[in-house]
Amino acid sequence: MENFTFYSPTFFAFGKDTEQQTGEYVKRFGGSKVLIHYGGKSAKSSGLLDRVEASLKKEGIPYVMLGGVKPNPRSGLVYEGIELCKNEGVDFVLAVGGGSVIDSSKAIAAGVVYDGDFWDFYSGKRIEKALPVGTILTIAAAGSEGSPDSVITKEEGMFKRGASGDAIRPKFSILNPALTQTLPAYQSAAGITDIMAHLYERYLTNSKEVEVTDRLIEALLLTMKHEGPRVIADPNNYEARANIMWAGMMAHNNSCGVGRSQDWTSHDIEHELSALYDCAHGAGLAVTMPAVHRYVYKHDVMRFAKVAVRVWGCQMDFDHPEVTALEGIAAFQNFLCSIGMPKNFEELGAKKEDIPKLVEVLCRGNGREGSLTGFVTLDEEDCTKIYEMMV
Amino acid sequence: MENFTFYSPTFFAFGKDTEQQTGEYVKRFGGSKVLIHYGGKSAKSSGLLDRVEASLKKEGIPYVMLGGVKPNPRSGLVYEGIELCKNEGVDFVLAVGGGSVIDSSKAIAAGVVYDGDFWDFYSGKRIEKALPVGTILTIAAAGSEGSPDSVITKEEGMFKRGASGDAIRPKFSILNPALTQTLPAYQSAAGITDIMAHLYERYLTNSKEVEVTDRLIEALLLTMKHEGPRVIADPNNYEARANIMWAGMMAHNNSCGVGRSQDWTSHDIEHELSALYDCAHGAGLAVTMPAVHRYVYKHDVMRFAKVAVRVWGCQMDFDHPEVTALEGIAAFQNFLCSIGMPKNFEELGAKKEDIPKLVEVLCRGNGREGSLTGFVTLDEEDCTKIYEMMV
Repeated sequence: MENFTFYSPTFFAFGKDTEQQTGEYVKRFGGSKVLIHYGGKSAKSSGLLDRVEASLKKEGIPYVMLGGVKPNPRSGLVYEGIELCKNEGVDFVLAVGGGSVIDSSKAIAAGVVYDGDFWDFYSGKRIEKALPVGTILTIAAAGSEGSPDSVITKEEGMFKRGASGDAIRPKFSILNPALTQTLPAYQSAAGITDIMAHLYERYLTNSKEVEVTDRLIEALLLTMKHEGPRVIADPNNYEARANIMWAGMMAHNNSCGVGRSQDWTSHDIEHELSALYDCAHGAGLAVTMPAVHRYVYKHDVMRFAKVAVRVWGCQMDFDHPEVTALEGIAAFQNFLCSIGMPKNFEELGAKKEDIPKLVEVLCRGNGREGSLTGFVTLDEEDCTKIYEMMV
Repeated sequence: MENFTFYSPTFFAFGKDTEQQTGEYVKRFGGSKVLIHYGGKSAKSSGLLDRVEASLKKEGIPYVMLGGVKPNPRSGLVYEGIELCKNEGVDFVLAVGGGSVIDSSKAIAAGVVYDGDFWDFYSGKRIEKALPVGTILTIAAAGSEGSPDSVITKEEGMFKRGASGDAIRPKFSILNPALTQTLPAYQSAAGITDIMAHLYERYLTNSKEVEVTDRLIEALLLTMKHEGPRVIADPNNYEARANIMWAGMMAHNNSCGVGRSQDWTSHDIEHELSALYDCAHGAGLAVTMPAVHRYVYKHDVMRFAKVAVRVWGCQMDFDHPEVTALEGIAAFQNFLCSIGMPKNFEELGAKKEDIPKLVEVLCRGNGREGSLTGFVTLDEEDCTKIYEMMV
């Protein structure tokens, strides 16, 4: 196991009706004027925004509102949010939505107290200072509610890039599983896939002797394998939603990823797909991961055999571990298809002829110099082959 | 799953040589004059205290020292520590040791800023305010490095009681697995048992639909089952020590125990043993748990069958689940014996004739009114029978 530090000071309020304490939590964590940042109509029509506003009013906390965050959130709205916060003297950013809203909120929070262009943070600069952020989560997926990370797409060039820093870790996150019950099946499945991707990216490590984190990751994958189909079968299953919601947070606050190298090449490869086609990130991952895994499994056959046996219930082929490894990859892909995720470019809405462009932006865009590093280092030829495997 | 809040704002620095950053962390978390609280000779003879002192000096942070914490830490030394801190103007308590040292440090930290007798907190009063506490952990066991809890024994009457409050949650904890390599096998095994007890106490729940936390608990139990014997076989196995150390923290920071009722009757029943006989807490738990489990398993046979299958590798007897349940309890006890833990009163140094006294203090001492609540409510007759099963 490698040396590490771990710090996860987010306060979580989990369960039914917890959004009614929003005002108290904003106060406790130092907010005196709030930006409520949200997405589209559902937060309004469901009555969620009304309840959040009522809770702030009850505590006498003034607020301004900015909606319109889209999946794969864009830099344009971030600039708008920064402007608004500066003009209105906002000192607390409250995200009401899923990962996209939270990531957009984090970008605004960092941008408000920064003298330069906020995009600097998405070009490699670490975020050291930001307004405090709170979240009310409506989709179990991104894990952004407990993470120091944010991903934003820059409209010029459609670059999708990430930024990080403890300053943007939410001060509090309100997790009410009931709020996720209205999600359509496809979005629920994309969220499930995203959570499993966060686990697989951590599982694919070159670090040795990491049994405790291996076991924790497997535990969360097993949870998703069990609860995922229950949510697809019955969107109103509060209990299954609750199990997924906590698993989604634990999958990405890094308590199961400490002390080990991680992968994240599937995320990199997928980001170009959702940036270009505006598909759901989880749907892109469902197509990307099996291809990446089949491309790299020979790098550590036993690791793939382990997840096949421990998570997917495969019998170990002790004479041919690679058979078990491939069986596990197939089982994972079958699972993703069974919950309604696409399995190839066509189902995703991606085009074979775009592959050179995808590879170019992936490997050369935004400061990269021709390859991705992770579990295995992948150059342009590797990435081309991987995209081709998805066709 | 039940509603819950979760807040774990401890900063963890994990790995080799991390104690050399002690001074920086004390400074970062606001300490300007430190009490170094420790146990006996080993912290001195190993050179650990020298390294900690050097690190504080490097940052120009003055300190006073108080050693002498014993296993099952006593109220007498806590009063002494409180006095010392007040006289010397200490504003930060640094624990260098295992759970006993950390618990004593937490009691001192709470007592210094409290007007009354610190024992009030161990008689049910919640700790709302305390000096900041930091820890340098030398034994993987109690989980106190990441918890808001402390257990102290009052010398008059030998009451062993717990206190809680976010204020005593460590601001930082330094976890260097190498520091645990000098532990004798018996103490290592007692630590392993304590960690597994923290997991079992959470596993024994009456809450329904808690798959994610069930799986996380099982993951940590599986880790202990795998790494425990490796540490007993080779005390210098850094990697096995590292896996156990992180599992020990995760077992008790409650991320795997949220949203569910918990048990803790095994801890209650054991506390009287270590209070009366001054045995290692883990050794007492090794004798207590199998008896408690055999006494209560019929309350939820399927839960005991589940841990038997998922952790202990038992085959499910679908016609007679109770057979599997009992097989799992036996496997757990066999495991504890295999790492050198006692299996009955005699091996522990406890006496059958003391049972009435143990039950009296357990069920009537310190405000209790005749029974323990948890997975199953246990009255004096139940507790008598359970102690008798340990003979």
